[in-house]
Amino acid sequence: MTGRMPKGEADRTAALQRVVAVARGDEPADLVVRGGKVVNVLTGETYAADVAIAAGRVVGIGDYAAREEFDARGLFVAPGFVDAHIHIESTMLVPREFARAVVPRGTTTVVADPHEIANVLGADGIAYMLAATEGLPLDVFLMLPSCVPPTSLETPAARLDAEDLEPWISHPRVLGLAEVMHYAGVVDGEAAVLEKLALASEKRVDGHAPGLRGRALNAYIAAGIWSDHECTAVAEAREKLRKGMYVFIREGSVAKNLDALLPLVSRQNASRFGIVSDDRHPTDLAAQGHMDSLLRRAVALGLSPVTALQLVTLNPAQYFGWRDRGAIAPGYRADLVVLEDLKDFRVRAVWKGGRLVARDGRLVADLPASPRPPREAMHIGWERIGALDVPAAEGDSGWVIGLVPDQLATRALVLPLRVHAGRALADPARDIGKVAVVERHRATGNVGVGFVRGFGFQAGALASTVAHDSHNVIVVGADDGDMWAAVRALERMGGGMVAVRNREAVASVALPVAGLMAEEPYEAVASAMERLLEAARALGCSMADPFMALSFLALPVIPELRITDRGLVDVTRLRHIPVVAGIRRARGART
Amino acid sequence: MTGRMPKGEADRTAALQRVVAVARGDEPADLVVRGGKVVNVLTGETYAADVAIAAGRVVGIGDYAAREEFDARGLFVAPGFVDAHIHIESTMLVPREFARAVVPRGTTTVVADPHEIANVLGADGIAYMLAATEGLPLDVFLMLPSCVPPTSLETPAARLDAEDLEPWISHPRVLGLAEVMHYAGVVDGEAAVLEKLALASEKRVDGHAPGLRGRALNAYIAAGIWSDHECTAVAEAREKLRKGMYVFIREGSVAKNLDALLPLVSRQNASRFGIVSDDRHPTDLAAQGHMDSLLRRAVALGLSPVTALQLVTLNPAQYFGWRDRGAIAPGYRADLVVLEDLKDFRVRAVWKGGRLVARDGRLVADLPASPRPPREAMHIGWERIGALDVPAAEGDSGWVIGLVPDQLATRALVLPLRVHAGRALADPARDIGKVAVVERHRATGNVGVGFVRGFGFQAGALASTVAHDSHNVIVVGADDGDMWAAVRALERMGGGMVAVRNREAVASVALPVAGLMAEEPYEAVASAMERLLEAARALGCSMADPFMALSFLALPVIPELRITDRGLVDVTRLRHIPVVAGIRRARGART
Repeated sequence: MTGRMPKGEADRTAALQRVVAVARGDEPADLVVRGGKVVNVLTGETYAADVAIAAGRVVGIGDYAAREEFDARGLFVAPGFVDAHIHIESTMLVPREFARAVVPRGTTTVVADPHEIANVLGADGIAYMLAATEGLPLDVFLMLPSCVPPTSLETPAARLDAEDLEPWISHPRVLGLAEVMHYAGVVDGEAAVLEKLALASEKRVDGHAPGLRGRALNAYIAAGIWSDHECTAVAEAREKLRKGMYVFIREGSVAKNLDALLPLVSRQNASRFGIVSDDRHPTDLAAQGHMDSLLRRAVALGLSPVTALQLVTLNPAQYFGWRDRGAIAPGYRADLVVLEDLKDFRVRAVWKGGRLVARDGRLVADLPASPRPPREAMHIGWERIGALDVPAAEGDSGWVIGLVPDQLATRALVLPLRVHAGRALADPARDIGKVAVVERHRATGNVGVGFVRGFGFQAGALASTVAHDSHNVIVVGADDGDMWAAVRALERMGGGMVAVRNREAVASVALPVAGLMAEEPYEAVASAMERLLEAARALGCSMADPFMALSFLALPVIPELRITDRGLVDVTRLRHIPVVAGIRRARGART
Repeated sequence: MTGRMPKGEADRTAALQRVVAVARGDEPADLVVRGGKVVNVLTGETYAADVAIAAGRVVGIGDYAAREEFDARGLFVAPGFVDAHIHIESTMLVPREFARAVVPRGTTTVVADPHEIANVLGADGIAYMLAATEGLPLDVFLMLPSCVPPTSLETPAARLDAEDLEPWISHPRVLGLAEVMHYAGVVDGEAAVLEKLALASEKRVDGHAPGLRGRALNAYIAAGIWSDHECTAVAEAREKLRKGMYVFIREGSVAKNLDALLPLVSRQNASRFGIVSDDRHPTDLAAQGHMDSLLRRAVALGLSPVTALQLVTLNPAQYFGWRDRGAIAPGYRADLVVLEDLKDFRVRAVWKGGRLVARDGRLVADLPASPRPPREAMHIGWERIGALDVPAAEGDSGWVIGLVPDQLATRALVLPLRVHAGRALADPARDIGKVAVVERHRATGNVGVGFVRGFGFQAGALASTVAHDSHNVIVVGADDGDMWAAVRALERMGGGMVAVRNREAVASVALPVAGLMAEEPYEAVASAMERLLEAARALGCSMADPFMALSFLALPVIPELRITDRGLVDVTRLRHIPVVAGIRRARGART
């Protein structure tokens, strides 16, 4: 050594000397995974080979002595799985519990968009997610949320403009800007949106542009947006692919696109695809897993197992510019998964950076404690809140949000209202419930009230602090008293989801972290969620997951009718409308 | 605009607004290439489409109005070609003339290793190459030379250790560390080599490891080396590919590996291959072209044209982490080539960053003047130089460098010497010439003298300042007087190549830039080179290119016998040996 090099380089040199000595066979490896079939995603091959690991890296493929061995005979050795786009908040788990759930399923890297918590807590939400993902046996990278607040049709809890994101963009675990949902703003050249794109231009920018085609799509991509996970049809995905986008096929708990898009994947274009989960509910996570379940599904649909693995390893690595992740080769991080087969993708063991972190479905690594959430989740301005009354006259009709089974879209219905003593009421006999959004971040006392058809329940109320994207309290009920009881119950729990009957909470899930995430073990959260859904069914609710439907009722970007803390929103015209339709009845509204 | 963003971001935002406005169709594009078939290397498809360009970028594929149109009916539109590994010095052209030669052939980006000039001028050579590539209609990136000096068996003109390279590593046009030829040093963990790897660990490190396999290869790769362009056989290339290396198939003027390696390229692994030129002589460049000729050859050998194009566009872009180069899609740099077909790859027009730079084989862009070379190339220590005498006795045998036709390897021969008046002499009748290396950088007066068999010439002398890798003067001749005349001629020319007969230079190429590169137009250099080769033939020289053979005689890393300014080198044992074999004759030397 010349001694003139800076300390960092000298350390790197010393580390390299160890790696090289092990690789050439002069020192024993830390670990050899012996006798397995290696899935080589670089060449698309699978062959028998031993993998030697030292200093957290793969150092060699071949014949090596080691301090420790893992017998992988009859098993497959694959790179750790990558989820290139997930909202961890959708799992309702804090990152620590999320890691405990997904690492034993083979996930070693995720790229998370903290869009939900940032819409509640602003920059504090980003800070929390970075702190809560520190030291996990899972690498969690963040994309900076691009749409906080999501719209101007509700009272924003937080606001993140380009200059607010700027301090975060150079964080080593921040990879760029998360899905730019406001695609119209990009295409129209809105300065506030383009400023965020400019800020992230040296990093990655993820897209979100369902159905965008032609010149508008050109504009969106030319602005510097490199991926999309919202394709639902082959023609749309083909156009995006041809125009340079990485197409991440989303197979979430809600939206599932593998079936529709896999026919487009060929050997010639496979390197431009990925598979991502986007949203993954706690019950699915506990019962079916994470990327392993997506692999299972992709292979069941006919994708070659090695290609399927490429889509969740090498390809996201290429997209994000990681050179030492997503494959098994000398110099790569030793993020390995040992699998029983390439059909069920049952995971026997997982190494993260050369350390055994999961075995036979259980995490074996230590987990750091979760940090305290930055503040309490519930700030309801009771002193400013009135009743949930909707003044109306006998014979009035009103706008009613019509749920559509198995879809996020709603229909704007005009229906005769049940009116009593000058007020419109829920009407369980006609499956019309009252719905309210109660602002919970800044104690404004804002409450929006409306009606909804399709939940099917006969009594009681359901309420949740998970209500995209502003995550105010949303409550639906057959009875105002039960609705208030539900809101009060959530306030006591510090956020969460609840089912109420006769003024009593009959089931609940507490989500004290921003009203979005539980601190409980993931198994407990999943079973509490199941009990909650059962309670909803007991109230007469016929839907598979009424809380999911509820959580999207306040998202004023999906047509046709939504509700925010400021009232009903006609999404097609992007404006608020009153509940009582009155003279508008003639406008041709459907029933 | 909020006005709170830094100036750079504000400029980027304004630029994006223009791009987006053109892309969505509200403003005319600068240029539309209309009616051609676009080669989409992202999806492996070819289809009819118009390409719209604004602000130097592709903004859209589709229907656009533009200020200017190019009629590409009946033609193919492909991304500009990338040469991922070339030594520009091998073309004997300064970068300006190199650009003039290759841009009309479709090359828009090259990654150059200034190994030769750095071995002559050290860091000044790097500075010169960066200055000389500024403002060209060709993007030239550099890899920092990793082997200066190449060995310790000669007097080094320059020395670049890690700390000398450190100031250059963050230059925006420096992509990393160039081919690490000292692979034994890497595998053995030599600190001086690993320090260079550590320095470049955040960037790319190119490899050069002919024949390296097994654990030694693991060690080499694990040290952080990501590519290799020295594979000559399928088995070797397959192993390197499997172990994560990008395999750049080299098809140079000297070494040609396409034929041997193309059978390995499949749709599954094609994305891990490239094609590079490495060394390209001026006559080949002028007569056959650059990457276009490599494409022609690859397709003639059976590679699909679109795959061939991927190997010289998208794949090098992926390797180097360029996200906006190597394909035609919105947001990508408008580096385009219009081709007559995908068989002969005849180039009709080339755009660089949206600017038409070549048309019908001629450069149409302005070129900046070449910078002055940092210093004179010739520093011969005449006052310290003696004669070229080799003292010997009647009946002595001596070590003779035996050329092998069409190979760089030589054989170590022991042959009876022709001795007169106590000195060994050249012996044209037996095709034995005298060879000498005269140190020319530091005026040391060092001269190494030996004998060589195989040039075949009968009279005169040939000399050159291109003599890998230290680039001293190498001279071979039938007669000491002609040899000195040749060295004197080179000194007068300021470096170059010369053929001498009867003490007169009969043909020459002046290479005043470091004794390696001409400042003349490339056509003039190519014809001067042809005249020089003709002159060599007139001297009786039967080889196709004796100057090429000459230039490798001083490279003491290729077996078996070489010569440096310090004398003969037995490369197998890495040590100097005397000319007169004397008592060593019994050692079983071959004749």
